[in-house]
Amino acid sequence: MYKINILGTGNVGTALSEAFKDNANVKLISSRSPELIDTTADFTIIAVSDNAIEEVAYKLPKSSSIVCHTSGSIPLSVLQGLNNATGVFYPLQTFTKGIKLDYSLIPFFIEASESETIEQLQKLASLISHNIYISDSEKRKNLHLASVFACNFTNALAYIADQCLDSTGYDFSVLQPLLEQTVAKLCLLTPEEAQTGPAIRNDTKVIDAHLKMLDSMPLYQQIYKLLTQSICDQKKMK
Amino acid sequence: MYKINILGTGNVGTALSEAFKDNANVKLISSRSPELIDTTADFTIIAVSDNAIEEVAYKLPKSSSIVCHTSGSIPLSVLQGLNNATGVFYPLQTFTKGIKLDYSLIPFFIEASESETIEQLQKLASLISHNIYISDSEKRKNLHLASVFACNFTNALAYIADQCLDSTGYDFSVLQPLLEQTVAKLCLLTPEEAQTGPAIRNDTKVIDAHLKMLDSMPLYQQIYKLLTQSICDQKKMK
Repeated sequence: MYKINILGTGNVGTALSEAFKDNANVKLISSRSPELIDTTADFTIIAVSDNAIEEVAYKLPKSSSIVCHTSGSIPLSVLQGLNNATGVFYPLQTFTKGIKLDYSLIPFFIEASESETIEQLQKLASLISHNIYISDSEKRKNLHLASVFACNFTNALAYIADQCLDSTGYDFSVLQPLLEQTVAKLCLLTPEEAQTGPAIRNDTKVIDAHLKMLDSMPLYQQIYKLLTQSICDQKKMK
Repeated sequence: MYKINILGTGNVGTALSEAFKDNANVKLISSRSPELIDTTADFTIIAVSDNAIEEVAYKLPKSSSIVCHTSGSIPLSVLQGLNNATGVFYPLQTFTKGIKLDYSLIPFFIEASESETIEQLQKLASLISHNIYISDSEKRKNLHLASVFACNFTNALAYIADQCLDSTGYDFSVLQPLLEQTVAKLCLLTPEEAQTGPAIRNDTKVIDAHLKMLDSMPLYQQIYKLLTQSICDQKKMK
């Protein structure tokens, strides 16, 4: 069984320690105590905030671990001053403490300079998941940007949708089947094929009525305008 | 068994005829041929585009059907000149021909002036679904606006995310588990509680890097800015 240090008890670190717990020997350590790592471990996974990765990495005691970080936006090169084999172990998923998920579906994007390290990180990921990809820092940056649109901004839209329900007295749960189907469709259709709604129909009457309803919420009105524009542009490019 | 005319063979009409097929006697008719309705039917459901509802309704032959439309944004009053009992039968869902879904989860929002008609429409909806709500034209307008943010704009973000993957060579499917989890979390957490990502962490370094990556796509850059702003505002209002 692999021995794994996970540094950082935030959303990512906690989720990874949960994901590995049946298939590896995991030690979950606060990012403030890098000195507590098991120096005989096979892997040391740094799952701290982007700004802290470098600092934490260079405080690690000497070990023969493969040291990797889990960030979408930080290049592998940040670890290059270490004497260890280094890599990136990026799970493309949204983690929130206390929320269970099917770890076997998480796409892992792996990066390392040495092919041997890549192989080791693949083995590590395969303890959890069936979706393992070799990546590089440039691709990972783009993946991370895509994930902000797909995940963080989708959640922001859910917040706005919830605000739109305020005056109705209906609970957010009335939108849940719609949200689930919106995403389920994308297994079968491209986003372009799946697009429905007033913008793709060029239904200016409904669009204008919606913009008027948003008069008192200028930021949401502006977001409505731009996303409508992006859908219309999609159509034009066909 | 109820006899039901469904007028309109678009996404909504086709889906409703599919949903009712085991529990009712359904006649699916092109919107161009309102004269072909079964005049002895219990219900005539007008599932045509918003702009065509009125025209189609007033071309219907005399019948004792309850006549209803399925639109989110058109008031019930558009049908008030008919001699029939009238109502609205609004399914809060995204329909695409050829894409199956669990009809029993669709929330139906029902409106009618007469309580007897409301009861009849409730019975009709209960043939399909467990999620039935009484609504009015004002609430329905807000529901429809919410659904544009939750569904149509979420799909638009998926399109943008897909564009961000262009240079990586990865398929959109790498984002699917993330999308599904983003939505699944909203069963357990409010959108506010579920928010993750650089904006809610106020990670200006990542945000600035993402904005720079979007330099060549000014519309997407603007959308990124405004949605980031909306997440930051959420946080401030806490």
